[in-house]
Amino acid sequence: MELALSEAAAAAARGEVPVGAVITDALGRVLTRAGNQVLGDRDPTAHAEMLAIRAAARLLQSERLMECDLYVTLEPCAMCAQAISFARIRRVYFAASDVKGGGVEHGARIFQQPTCHHRPEVYGGIGESAAAGLLRDFFAARR
Amino acid sequence: MELALSEAAAAAARGEVPVGAVITDALGRVLTRAGNQVLGDRDPTAHAEMLAIRAAARLLQSERLMECDLYVTLEPCAMCAQAISFARIRRVYFAASDVKGGGVEHGARIFQQPTCHHRPEVYGGIGESAAAGLLRDFFAARR
Repeated sequence: MELALSEAAAAAARGEVPVGAVITDALGRVLTRAGNQVLGDRDPTAHAEMLAIRAAARLLQSERLMECDLYVTLEPCAMCAQAISFARIRRVYFAASDVKGGGVEHGARIFQQPTCHHRPEVYGGIGESAAAGLLRDFFAARR
Repeated sequence: MELALSEAAAAAARGEVPVGAVITDALGRVLTRAGNQVLGDRDPTAHAEMLAIRAAARLLQSERLMECDLYVTLEPCAMCAQAISFARIRRVYFAASDVKGGGVEHGARIFQQPTCHHRPEVYGGIGESAAAGLLRDFFAARR
C-alpha cells in the first residue's frame, strides 16, 4: 500500500486526483503500479486501477489476472470494480472509503450484484488516514 | 447503429464476443468506431464502448465528450456504463438487452444510482434483433 500511496502522491503532483494502485502476483511481487491519469491522458477511463490492470494484463499476456492482488488508495468506483471482477483479481486492498464515488461498499456495490461472476476478497481501511489525507489536501488546495 | 453492428460482426470474425460501438459528435458525424477486443488485446477492459470512448477522448483532446452520443449493439455493462457517465456522453442507444451482464437496465443499474453524477438519455432496443442474432450465432457456434 505504501507504493500505491507514493503513486497517489505523484498523481497529486501532476494535478490529478491523488489515487494510486499497485498489482502484485501470487508471490506478492509488484507487477505494475499506476497513478490516476485522467487529465494527463485526456482519458475518462484512466483511473489508477484501470491503468494497473491493463498494464498487468499486457505484462502477463492474459486478460485474466487470477492470482493477482490489487492495492489501491481509494475505494474503487463502479467502473474499476467491474474491471477488477472481469480481470479475476484475487484480493482487493483499499485505503480510504469513498461515500460519493465508491462502487464497492457504496453506490452500485458491484461485487454484491447477483450478476457479478467473480467477487474478489475485499479488505478496506488499510492505510486509510494517509490516503484520505492526500485527498483532503488536494481538494482543499483547489477550493 | 448499422456501423456498430458491422463492428460487432467484425469482432465475431476475430473470435471476440460480437459487440460494436460508435460515437458521434453533436452533428451526428461518426467520431470513432470499435469492436470488442478483449482477447486480441489481452485487455479485460477492452469492451467496444471503452475503446470508442478512449479513442474519441483522444481525438477531441478532452476527457469529456459532452455533446457526443454512443451507439452500441449490447446493453453496456457496469464498467462501460460508469465510463459513459464519466465521459458525459449525451445519449446512449443500445440494441440487445443483457439480462446477465448489463449494468444499465439490469444488475448495478449505474445511471439509477443516487451517486451517479451524469445520466445520459438512454434508448434501448434499436436494431435489437440483428444484434441479438449475432450474439446467439456466436455463442451457438461455441457450444
